[in-house]
Parts: sequence; structure tokens; C-alpha cells
Amino acid sequence: MEAPPFLAACRREPVPHTPVWLMRQAGRYMPEYRAVRERLGFLALCKSPDAAAEVTVTAALRLGVDAAIVFADILLVLEPMGVGLEFTRGDGPVIRRPVRSGADVDRLAEVDPAALGYVAEAVRRARAALPARVPLIGFAGAPFTLASYLVEGGGSRTYARTKALMTDPGAWRALMERLVRVVAAYLNAQIAAGADAVQLFDSWVGCLSPADYRAHVLPHVRALIAALTPGTPVIHFGTGTAGLLEAMRAAGGDVIGLDWRVDLDAAWARLGHDVAVQGNLDPVALLAPIPEIRARAAAILDQAANRPGHIFNLGHGILPETPVDHVRALVDAVHELSARR
Amino acid sequence: MEAPPFLAACRREPVPHTPVWLMRQAGRYMPEYRAVRERLGFLALCKSPDAAAEVTVTAALRLGVDAAIVFADILLVLEPMGVGLEFTRGDGPVIRRPVRSGADVDRLAEVDPAALGYVAEAVRRARAALPARVPLIGFAGAPFTLASYLVEGGGSRTYARTKALMTDPGAWRALMERLVRVVAAYLNAQIAAGADAVQLFDSWVGCLSPADYRAHVLPHVRALIAALTPGTPVIHFGTGTAGLLEAMRAAGGDVIGLDWRVDLDAAWARLGHDVAVQGNLDPVALLAPIPEIRARAAAILDQAANRPGHIFNLGHGILPETPVDHVRALVDAVHELSARR
Repeated sequence: MEAPPFLAACRREPVPHTPVWLMRQAGRYMPEYRAVRERLGFLALCKSPDAAAEVTVTAALRLGVDAAIVFADILLVLEPMGVGLEFTRGDGPVIRRPVRSGADVDRLAEVDPAALGYVAEAVRRARAALPARVPLIGFAGAPFTLASYLVEGGGSRTYARTKALMTDPGAWRALMERLVRVVAAYLNAQIAAGADAVQLFDSWVGCLSPADYRAHVLPHVRALIAALTPGTPVIHFGTGTAGLLEAMRAAGGDVIGLDWRVDLDAAWARLGHDVAVQGNLDPVALLAPIPEIRARAAAILDQAANRPGHIFNLGHGILPETPVDHVRALVDAVHELSARR
Repeated sequence: MEAPPFLAACRREPVPHTPVWLMRQAGRYMPEYRAVRERLGFLALCKSPDAAAEVTVTAALRLGVDAAIVFADILLVLEPMGVGLEFTRGDGPVIRRPVRSGADVDRLAEVDPAALGYVAEAVRRARAALPARVPLIGFAGAPFTLASYLVEGGGSRTYARTKALMTDPGAWRALMERLVRVVAAYLNAQIAAGADAVQLFDSWVGCLSPADYRAHVLPHVRALIAALTPGTPVIHFGTGTAGLLEAMRAAGGDVIGLDWRVDLDAAWARLGHDVAVQGNLDPVALLAPIPEIRARAAAILDQAANRPGHIFNLGHGILPETPVDHVRALVDAVHELSARR
């Protein structure tokens, strides 16, 4: 069998059409997802391999996308570290006992890989339920973004405390090395359970200057990617990264994820065409009328110019208020407009 | 008399040292400012030309910076439009009657230039009180950023409503043309009152894709800059603009303001060295110990490489928790490290 288009594109091989999937494709915008959430809280859903696999597969098949992504959360790896992770309704995630010093880092609990076994199990069940033509993506938060939650105790506007910890090189390195170890084991477990590719979400790394990224993040991401099971494509994604692209490329990944705040063609030229790219429609564009969505998809495909190695996606996750038929219209538009004649 | 270093740098002329000033240099981090705010609310301070001039001049002289910037707020121009602007403590600015449609745009009140006369008067008094060697900067919000507040009713994470209004080209154009007219008159009044340069704050324009910027923002900024009194340097600033630099340059400005999320040398090369640049230290860096601040200032000066046309600044405003002696240390470091031998 030929490789599915998504995996072929990860390897910059020819594809019959540009593959497309969408970050947060199993999410609140979708009635089937909301129905599951009526009986299960967010964390309970993540921890139920059957339910997590169900929303994973339903979203992929309902949309007709070229890849599924296991339903989980980037912060799950932090829970067994004993920092008091809670998902509060409305306020987003909270870390009750944030990490602000080297002593705090030393106090982090060692993660027993079995503690996160439910995610690998969801991967296993979703993989078993998906058609062979639909690859399954595993994922994890990248060390910087995880560290930012641990240090700030939640989201942040300035990341001042995280940047302050960076000025204590020993403490910062200890924290990053701990996270690299945990995340590598976690992603390798997902790969062993059947994930066909993995995505590293460095969602908030765009708050850093390029110099800080190179000094305090790049070496750790590089070590993490080097520790992953060879042969499985790695997508390396962040937002607000228009000034970091070359450095993210240097850190590694078979595919670099682009948000919407760069022109795809200019960004790809900066990265080099010997790496694949994923992106890069503004999630807000999915709120516009369908003809406008199609026009925007066409503009991105024009920038990709049929080069091997483009995976269509949004620049960040689907917004909860997005109409489902707009999402489907985007998937159809990408497939139609990119069909190789 | 030789031109002050700040004005010389705006024109890319040789300077004895790299000029430096800091966004929000008259702000909550400074005890003298907090003392004035104990007797005057924020809006009352803006509307008192004597008090506004006082905090403007005090900050510049206390820090020893190369330019003062008139104390005001980018949203003041919206107040006479009758949209119910309020500065609420803690929550930031609120627009009680947001603009969501073409009809809402038509209902905006025409701005009587006299309604904003207090800012020009503050410019006049600050200019009179400042030594001749310290230029005074006037400023205004740029049309997109002003529109984003008008449409969202305050700050926003996604700017979904603002982007939605962009898909109604008639309404969007009407709104932007209105704002261009008001802002041009407002800045020209500041110039007539003695402002030696003006800065356009397109603070939130970095939420846009480059394509949206080119289609819906660039022509209006260009029209605005073309309408300003010739001969006065214009600084064109935004944050999160690493993907927009070429387009901002095309829109205009003698100086392009850079935030901290780009390498200054790479950004300047993309812009072209025939335009001046301002920036670009991470405001969070001012919370670090002074030797670290000096090292970071040196790194930015190294990137600027003594090219004519660099004005040192932060990548955004000074954070309220910043120690005053750190700010002074930065100013001194820039002067010492850049002194031309």
C-alpha cells in the first residue's frame, strides 16, 4: 500500500493531494465532543482510553481529514510530578504548587511511566479503530511550554517568572533536563502504542527572544528529539515563532509547524525546502463565510506551490465558536484545490 | 547646535552615542509617577496638561534618556467618538458601546479637534520645560489597534470580531478612513505644539496574518503617514510583528520599532539598512540583575554594529514591577557601551 498522504508529506514524498488535519479537531466546536463531555469531565475524558479514543476517531472520520490526533492535553505529564495540576472551568489550567527555584525542581516527583499509561492505551485503541489510511498522531508539550506552566502556575502574559528562572542556569537546566526525560519517555510510549507520528507543542515559546531560545531552549529540544524512537516523523510546532524559525529548525523536527502570522512561502524559504512545513490558516478565518474560507485556503496552497512536504493545518487550534460545516468546507476545499492533475 | 542624538538617529546621521528612551518611561514603576497618581486618576492625569507635562519631563530627566514622550494614552482619541471609553482599575480599558457593523461606524461622532487639545497643550508645556537637547516625542495609536479596541470593546485574545469586520470591506474601510483622519489631525496638532518626532503604536497588529495586514491595514497606515506634517520623524511600532516587518516598512515610517522576538540584526537586514530601527530589549530583562541587563544591552548594541540609525529601546513598555535603578542602569549601559571612540 502507498503511504497515506499525511505520512508521505512528513517525508516530503509526492502526494495525490495536500493532506490536512486541524489542531483541536476533537474539541468543543463539535456536537459529538460536547455530548461526551456532558457525561465526563475534561480530565476524566483524558483518562478514559475508550472515551478518548472515541472522540479521536469520531472527529477524524466526521471531518474526512488525513490524520487523527489522540485526544489528550499537553499538561497531563505534569500531574504525576505532584505539582497540583487542576483544570478549572473557565480559568484554564492551574498549578497549585508552582516551581520557582532549584529547590522546587529538586522536589518534583519522579514520574512513573505507568502513571501516564492511559494515554498510550488511548493511542492503542484509537489506532485499532481507525482505518489504515488514517495515520494517528501522538503529542506532548515541549519542555519550555511545560516549564512555563510549572513556573507561572498557569498561563501568563509576560512569562516573567519563567524568564527569571532562566537566569539561574543550574535550576533551569535541571528543570529542562527533567522535562526532556519525561516527555521523551511519554512520546516513545505513544509511538510504541501505535502513534504514526508525533507533534511537539511548544505553544508559548514565541514569548522568547531568539537569543533566549538559542541559549535556554534549543539544546533541550534537540536532546528530546534525538531521544525519540527513530523512523517516526516529528512535527515541531509553536505560535508567535516568526522570529524563531531558523532556531526551531536547528533544534529539529521533520515538519515545522507555522502559525498564521508568517507568509508560508517566506517562512518555508527561511527554513529551507529540505524540511516539511505544516500550516498555516488563521483559526479565526473559519468564522468567515465559506467562500472566504475557500479563498484563504487557496491562497495558502498557492504559497506552498505544490512543493513536496506541505501539510495543511490551522496556525493554532480550532476556536470553540467555529461552525462544524465551516471546518468540513475547509477540509474539502484543501482536498479539491490541491488534487494533483 | 548639533542635532540631539535621538533626532540624528531617526535620520540615520552619525551620533556620539546610541540614543535610548524607553516605552512607558513615565509609568507605575516610578515613585514620582505613583505620587502624582495618588492625587489624580489616570484620565484626569492625561487631561491635566500641567501634570502630564510634569510626569513627562520628570521621567526623562530622572533617567537621563535621549528623548521624552508626552504622557497620554493611545485610546484618548476614541473618547470624543462617543463610544463610552472607560479606564477601569485592573481590567484595562473598556469601550461600552463597541463598533460591530457599518451602521455602528456611521454612528461614530465626528471628532472636534478641540476635544483633544489637552494633549497638544501637554506637548507645549513639556516642550517648554525640557532642555533643548532632549527631543519630545508625540504619539498616537495606529488605526488597526484603535479599531481593535473599538470593535472588541477592550483587549482580546483572538481579535475575532475585528477580523470579522474586515470581511465587510465597506464597513472596515469606513472605520479605518475615519481613524486615519482623526489620528492624522491629532498627530499634526502635537507636531504643531512642538513634538519633535511622533510614534505610531500599532501595538496589537501582530495578531494579523501578513496577507490581512497587506490588504486591510497597510494602505491606511500609508495614507496616515502621508498626511503627517513633513519633516518630523515618524516611528512605526508594533509587537509580534516578526512576520510583518517588510509590510510595515512598505506602509512607512522613518524608524521601524522592533519588539524583542526578533534578532535586531536579522530584522534590520530584512527591512533594509536605509531605514532606522528602534529596539529591542525584552522588558522582562529589566527584572534581572544589573550585570545581566548590561550584557543584554551589549548584545543588542553588537547586533546594531554601530550602523547609523539605531535607537535603543525596549521591545514594549516598562513593566510596573521593574526597579527604577535597573532602568537607570540600562540607560547608563547603553550610553557607555555605545560611546563612539
